[in-house]
Amino acid sequence: MGSQSNFQMKEVPGEFGYVLQDVPHFSDYISDLQTYPNPLRSNPAYSVVKQYFVDMDDSVPEKIVVHKDTPRGVHFRRAGPRQQVYFESDDVLACIVTCGGLCPGLNTVIREIVHSLDYMYGVSKVLGIDGGYRGFYSKNTINLTPKLCNDIHKRGGTIIGSSRGGHDTTKIVDSIQDRGINQACVYIIGGDGTLRGANVIYEEIRKRGLKVAVAGIPKTIDNDIPVIDRSFGFDTAVEEAQRAINAAHVEADSAENGIGMVKLMGRYSGFIAMHATLASRDVDCCLIPESPFYLEGKGGLFEYIEKKLKENGHMVIVVAEGAGQELLPTKNEEDASGNKLLQDVGLWIAQRIKDHFAKQTKMPITLKYIDPTYMIRAIPSNASDNVYCTLLAQSAVHGAMAGYTGFTSGLVNGRHTYIPFNRIIEKQNKVVITDRMWARLLSSTNQPSFLGPKCPSLMNAGQLGTYDKVTGLLGCLSLKP
Amino acid sequence: MGSQSNFQMKEVPGEFGYVLQDVPHFSDYISDLQTYPNPLRSNPAYSVVKQYFVDMDDSVPEKIVVHKDTPRGVHFRRAGPRQQVYFESDDVLACIVTCGGLCPGLNTVIREIVHSLDYMYGVSKVLGIDGGYRGFYSKNTINLTPKLCNDIHKRGGTIIGSSRGGHDTTKIVDSIQDRGINQACVYIIGGDGTLRGANVIYEEIRKRGLKVAVAGIPKTIDNDIPVIDRSFGFDTAVEEAQRAINAAHVEADSAENGIGMVKLMGRYSGFIAMHATLASRDVDCCLIPESPFYLEGKGGLFEYIEKKLKENGHMVIVVAEGAGQELLPTKNEEDASGNKLLQDVGLWIAQRIKDHFAKQTKMPITLKYIDPTYMIRAIPSNASDNVYCTLLAQSAVHGAMAGYTGFTSGLVNGRHTYIPFNRIIEKQNKVVITDRMWARLLSSTNQPSFLGPKCPSLMNAGQLGTYDKVTGLLGCLSLKP
Amino acid sequence: MGSQSNFQMKEVPGEFGYVLQDVPHFSDYISDLQTYPNPLRSNPAYSVVKQYFVDMDDSVPEKIVVHKDTPRGVHFRRAGPRQQVYFESDDVLACIVTCGGLCPGLNTVIREIVHSLDYMYGVSKVLGIDGGYRGFYSKNTINLTPKLCNDIHKRGGTIIGSSRGGHDTTKIVDSIQDRGINQACVYIIGGDGTLRGANVIYEEIRKRGLKVAVAGIPKTIDNDIPVIDRSFGFDTAVEEAQRAINAAHVEADSAENGIGMVKLMGRYSGFIAMHATLASRDVDCCLIPESPFYLEGKGGLFEYIEKKLKENGHMVIVVAEGAGQELLPTKNEEDASGNKLLQDVGLWIAQRIKDHFAKQTKMPITLKYIDPTYMIRAIPSNASDNVYCTLLAQSAVHGAMAGYTGFTSGLVNGRHTYIPFNRIIEKQNKVVITDRMWARLLSSTNQPSFLGPKCPSLMNAGQLGTYDKVTGLLGCLSLKP
Amino acid sequence: MGSQSNFQMKEVPGEFGYVLQDVPHFSDYISDLQTYPNPLRSNPAYSVVKQYFVDMDDSVPEKIVVHKDTPRGVHFRRAGPRQQVYFESDDVLACIVTCGGLCPGLNTVIREIVHSLDYMYGVSKVLGIDGGYRGFYSKNTINLTPKLCNDIHKRGGTIIGSSRGGHDTTKIVDSIQDRGINQACVYIIGGDGTLRGANVIYEEIRKRGLKVAVAGIPKTIDNDIPVIDRSFGFDTAVEEAQRAINAAHVEADSAENGIGMVKLMGRYSGFIAMHATLASRDVDCCLIPESPFYLEGKGGLFEYIEKKLKENGHMVIVVAEGAGQELLPTKNEEDASGNKLLQDVGLWIAQRIKDHFAKQTKMPITLKYIDPTYMIRAIPSNASDNVYCTLLAQSAVHGAMAGYTGFTSGLVNGRHTYIPFNRIIEKQNKVVITDRMWARLLSSTNQPSFLGPKCPSLMNAGQLGTYDKVTGLLGCLSLKP
Repeated sequence: MGSQSNFQMKEVPGEFGYVLQDVPHFSDYISDLQTYPNPLRSNPAYSVVKQYFVDMDDSVPEKIVVHKDTPRGVHFRRAGPRQQVYFESDDVLACIVTCGGLCPGLNTVIREIVHSLDYMYGVSKVLGIDGGYRGFYSKNTINLTPKLCNDIHKRGGTIIGSSRGGHDTTKIVDSIQDRGINQACVYIIGGDGTLRGANVIYEEIRKRGLKVAVAGIPKTIDNDIPVIDRSFGFDTAVEEAQRAINAAHVEADSAENGIGMVKLMGRYSGFIAMHATLASRDVDCCLIPESPFYLEGKGGLFEYIEKKLKENGHMVIVVAEGAGQELLPTKNEEDASGNKLLQDVGLWIAQRIKDHFAKQTKMPITLKYIDPTYMIRAIPSNASDNVYCTLLAQSAVHGAMAGYTGFTSGLVNGRHTYIPFNRIIEKQNKVVITDRMWARLLSSTNQPSFLGPKCPSLMNAGQLGTYDKVTGLLGCLSLKP
Repeated sequence: MGSQSNFQMKEVPGEFGYVLQDVPHFSDYISDLQTYPNPLRSNPAYSVVKQYFVDMDDSVPEKIVVHKDTPRGVHFRRAGPRQQVYFESDDVLACIVTCGGLCPGLNTVIREIVHSLDYMYGVSKVLGIDGGYRGFYSKNTINLTPKLCNDIHKRGGTIIGSSRGGHDTTKIVDSIQDRGINQACVYIIGGDGTLRGANVIYEEIRKRGLKVAVAGIPKTIDNDIPVIDRSFGFDTAVEEAQRAINAAHVEADSAENGIGMVKLMGRYSGFIAMHATLASRDVDCCLIPESPFYLEGKGGLFEYIEKKLKENGHMVIVVAEGAGQELLPTKNEEDASGNKLLQDVGLWIAQRIKDHFAKQTKMPITLKYIDPTYMIRAIPSNASDNVYCTLLAQSAVHGAMAGYTGFTSGLVNGRHTYIPFNRIIEKQNKVVITDRMWARLLSSTNQPSFLGPKCPSLMNAGQLGTYDKVTGLLGCLSLKP
Repeated sequence: MGSQSNFQMKEVPGEFGYVLQDVPHFSDYISDLQTYPNPLRSNPAYSVVKQYFVDMDDSVPEKIVVHKDTPRGVHFRRAGPRQQVYFESDDVLACIVTCGGLCPGLNTVIREIVHSLDYMYGVSKVLGIDGGYRGFYSKNTINLTPKLCNDIHKRGGTIIGSSRGGHDTTKIVDSIQDRGINQACVYIIGGDGTLRGANVIYEEIRKRGLKVAVAGIPKTIDNDIPVIDRSFGFDTAVEEAQRAINAAHVEADSAENGIGMVKLMGRYSGFIAMHATLASRDVDCCLIPESPFYLEGKGGLFEYIEKKLKENGHMVIVVAEGAGQELLPTKNEEDASGNKLLQDVGLWIAQRIKDHFAKQTKMPITLKYIDPTYMIRAIPSNASDNVYCTLLAQSAVHGAMAGYTGFTSGLVNGRHTYIPFNRIIEKQNKVVITDRMWARLLSSTNQPSFLGPKCPSLMNAGQLGTYDKVTGLLGCLSLKP
Repeated sequence: MGSQSNFQMKEVPGEFGYVLQDVPHFSDYISDLQTYPNPLRSNPAYSVVKQYFVDMDDSVPEKIVVHKDTPRGVHFRRAGPRQQVYFESDDVLACIVTCGGLCPGLNTVIREIVHSLDYMYGVSKVLGIDGGYRGFYSKNTINLTPKLCNDIHKRGGTIIGSSRGGHDTTKIVDSIQDRGINQACVYIIGGDGTLRGANVIYEEIRKRGLKVAVAGIPKTIDNDIPVIDRSFGFDTAVEEAQRAINAAHVEADSAENGIGMVKLMGRYSGFIAMHATLASRDVDCCLIPESPFYLEGKGGLFEYIEKKLKENGHMVIVVAEGAGQELLPTKNEEDASGNKLLQDVGLWIAQRIKDHFAKQTKMPITLKYIDPTYMIRAIPSNASDNVYCTLLAQSAVHGAMAGYTGFTSGLVNGRHTYIPFNRIIEKQNKVVITDRMWARLLSSTNQPSFLGPKCPSLMNAGQLGTYDKVTGLLGCLSLKP
């Protein structure tokens, strides 16, 4: 998973096993820093709020299902405004960059960073970097004013554009240094690849000793960022996916032996597929990357389809884009972001199902395939995500103004925190198929676990205990034909 | 706030200040109980999930913003299936009752209780009590089968009906006893009044020594139930409220000195108004019960409206139904549930604003008043609430089957828990106007705090520190003319 | 109904009873007019369309349900571009004004006038008159560029504002004359009051001999403009009304003896109420201004409500804002446009129903009242209305450029035509309750005709034949108690 | 286009060139028919409507853009209830069958046929034929009661299922005869292929001399049925297509050289693509079957894309599924209904565009392809289509009860009429690209006509005059490479 941080985790111990995994701060590598009173002190909106500033010692535990004798474990620093800030408003140059695929809420995050900087901290120089990382050095910037951003949260997409693909860290830091003289906040909104890039940028900035804060806001429609409760846009995506599932259900239900198949996002993790399935209750089978399956023979998908069609006359299948990749003929390509190029598993399985049942004259099927991916990614965020994006953005602004760097803002157990990059990029979050949420799904769809005779190792409880959340590898995968 | 429990809180201490506030259990008052292995053990959906059953010692802390030396404090029991259950499937009679006003998700909760009982625990005798508490003894019941409930989550409302108003606890327990012989689970979905009733029912059952579990599922579209993160339907309500706010914005923006006013739910708490305002970003003023305000004079609402109209030519006001009740001419009535009957503050303020500006010939205004209350309450729950309702319902079912009683299921810091009735009914949750969320709102709307010369006591930080979350009384209220 | 035109209808006879009711033209009162080739001739989009220009003789019949020997009757001039225009692009000043209440599609009409003028005719000077008629002389104008208007069709309301109320025709024409030198097109979007005003403006312009075209675009969310098939925004309004009806249905269905009441627009005509009822199929009673009813006694509304509640346990009532006005205590006021101020009949009837059933202890009811008016008016137009608004706007632009004046564009039997103001303002369109559409509604709701013993005259077929479409007066009205 | 009717068109002449193209009637081939008074006479809903029954002589002209001396031309019989019916309610067996692809509104039509038969005519024996034509003889039927159908209009799809593919007319008529003894009404809902089948069924029934009415309701989401104004579901489809276009616009706008491509329905006609483009205003290029285009070289699609991307940085393309078929490598297959199997032109063009720009390193593009077809087809009809479907269904019921057969109900110039099958199946409706609607689209998108040097014959006005509306063949097509 690429570059590992050269800097050690900042850890602070406390009572009864308490550990604070702290985020970097300017004071870690710059001495003689001046501080200023937080401008919020004179903001009328906060005049009545006497305990507005976050206590410097506030922290939030990572694990909260505990026994009476469980040690307290890892904690993260609570997000929010501090009494003192490390920038003078007029001197600050802020930049915002969005990278990777679209996600509902991007514009809300941009809007709220711009508004918070201006209305809370009096920072008016905010640049939008056009079209992702490369825009730092290859394109003109966009002046982001509160007025320009006022209504953008009602639109999908990102007004500053996005892109995938390689970039040159040195050129980016050169560009930041050149534009921002020596005081800047850089807000980077992107997925795990982007945040790995952000970490390298942070390290380069630190090496150069610059007073430039690097703050990340994790963005992944797949919800596969670790540590945090959920990524912004996820709720909206699950909601919008219902349309496609409803349509698939109607199409399936109106045809003889109708199969409605919906492909949803989820390159390496099946969260959207799982939640959309749980929310809908019309789905008979949900296929995700974490749960291996096979098509033919006893206990396979074809057998289950045939059974369902005989019982109900129709069925709905949801398949995450990364599901069953091990079944597909190999193809070793990567996209511009270095993501392994996946074959369209939905189309592939759809064709295999058609072929399988075409051979069986006794059961002609009608399969309708729906891929709503771009219709889901492109919508504006719903109310819940709007509020969430607002708090994420404000947290990031508070953190950077307070001199923190190399961190992302993130929701941990319902509280806004600052998380060091190292924890965010160390692995990807995955659906744990031995966990209760997946069991709930199986119980809701009544689909088999597809872990039959061909996957004996999964039957072994010991194996499951060592299921590797990072790589998602299950012993069974090596058994596929 | 009415009846206090006659039974003491069950508290279990642990290391470093740990306290478990446990929920009652059959074994607290019935001896020689027989247990049975949980039928989920043989459920194919769970066959792969080896650690499916919740560890008996799992608990979740109530407060998670901590310092390194903070004692651990109150915890709740984690929800989920137990290895042993206290009912034999065939013997169980389950009843479900919904009380009070509509809320998105009611039907999803009903559906999931019925489906969980049947598919997970093999309990097929599930009765719907028709039209709220009184239905226990005054009406026929409805047989709730999985098939009948299959699509109800796509409809708003409650298929078993609801009502407000008094009821006779003795008759209810008689009815449960008569119908259910001696083994029953009663699922009660309702707000704080309903749950106080549930507590009394539980206590009567306990007095009679019946093996009848009473499980509550907190329902309040206002989100004013304490302890829990949020109530089901709240997300959906905030989302739907956006329509009304958008419309008010359009109406205001198209008229000269246009004012769009939207009344939202919130009898004693302004959560929906606050979140809808934060999500929308089109609102210039949000009035909630917790934040006193006055109309006339310096620092009052009229002055602010005039200022906004001069600046922008239009404005949008959101007002929670319980806001500014202290300003209204008094009227001492209660609804059938014993809720104090509030006058329609939206209509009243709208008229006062019209009257005020009618006197000023120099600024004729156009005010459009929108009350979307019943359009919001009646919609089906969105995807996020659908999943949430599912887990609430399943938790309640697992808990009752495991012999717990006198509890509600509830989300605490993102984890599903069992909370004793006492904690749920001891007070109402309120927006804390000295807290950061309200400061964020003020910052977003730029409205004044309305805590000017007429409310001097609020300027006193000490007062604010002792702000009473239970009664919501602020010294300032006694100062109103 | 106010001012009658001083100018005679232009009528052109033809074969077999054909009559063309023509619209005024510059050439009627200005001599020696120069013409120019239509700039569309060189527009690449039209290069392939050889018969693009409308044949000067094209007309569309008003009545098309005919017998084999029916004379042909009244026709209107077909809308569309002409070979010759009467303005030189650079010399033209265009103004657009919107008057009266909001209606979905206003912004689309504005956008399309601006775009058509610029892209088709090279007219770039387009002024938006701010806030209705009075804006001509009391406010600054808004420069409407194609860029400014590019996305406005996605927003509700009108970007140039609107208002009700009196205006000074002389000042308006002075203002037009002063600004536009001597060549202008004025586009007026409004209801029947507005178009009566437009007619007076046209007559004043004609008296002064100005080369100023006055083109109207009929706007009425109530659909009560005569001659035309339907007004823009009507489809969208009926669609949006479904939400309120669905909510009312859910509320009613979830309560014991639940009544959901929805008030819809319709001051003098019940088209929205009727179509919304027909589209929904959940409505048990639809009350409109054209169909008198009474509350008490045999055959009255209360009796019907009681019957329905006994049968189904709940019911949904839709009431148009102008329904049953004759029942209400009188109040002689008018709004700023001179519309008679109606009392809120929905609230009034709701209260009467509550009072009536409160007296009957045997049938306690729960009534939920929903007034979605401003939520309906303020939404953007749907796709169908978008296309419709586009064609209306383009027709108006083509007509004015071709020298026509004193006309509205309007859809007649599915064809776009030019209709002289006289025909548009001579009466209001009403639901004819002796017609089949209303019979369909009665059949769909199963409601009684409420034309019982108290309305004997309606039983008289002769009376019905002379039902006055203009005043909407039925003999029965004078018989009400 | 397959079977031509063996029966002559019934034509009735009138004054001034009037011709009535009448529909067949039982009395054409059965003598001594008994008639009965229409049961509507005693329906309370119609008691007040004195002129409810349609005058036997009412007719509606096909062409209504006329000159003062234009002869009157072809007319159709007006739909509606007649004084006399040819069936006795208790004796009638009705069947409903739906064929072909899904279309919003199918369930509304089914519901309204069932309700009209029952509530208006007292016909309670209504059978749903399961899964299309073959269901007449290969499957059990479904009893369609008013209760069963009560809420189906809120669901997409068809509750009686549908299918494509061949059928055996003899077996169908045998089945009708066997089930229905000798009195039946058959309602057939389907596209042109289905209606050609219905015509053959009607002819077979006529040959056998059966008193069985065959009534069609034209269904085509593509709107390609001739004579009628528009087909039901079309409005809903155009509305729903906006989502996909909006998403494509957001995706395109957020990427560098972003192209959003949306494939819409339209096998042989581009109506949905054209209307969706006109309604949206975000589309830069609309490709339809009727307008030939080419990809490479001067005046081709690639050149236009490059130009647009240079100007705006992004673009949106809408492509109808049948567009550019002549460009694709040939493949001679048909689907089960005998429709020529089209290659997925969207995917094909998308790939060609990607390939083209991949060769140009100076302009890397990002293309997002959206195919919302099944999400559009499967939604419930909107309010406007709901009312339309109701009237279509009622017209069909009135017609069949009045003894008409071999007809479809259809909207002609806004009036409901009966149209003989021959007129409906003689050709397909197409977008006439030399007509003004297409010119409006070109003007709205600014796309070229793609009728450049490679299509010289189209430049010839004479040719365009003879453009064949039936086959849609343009001389240019023979010039494609």
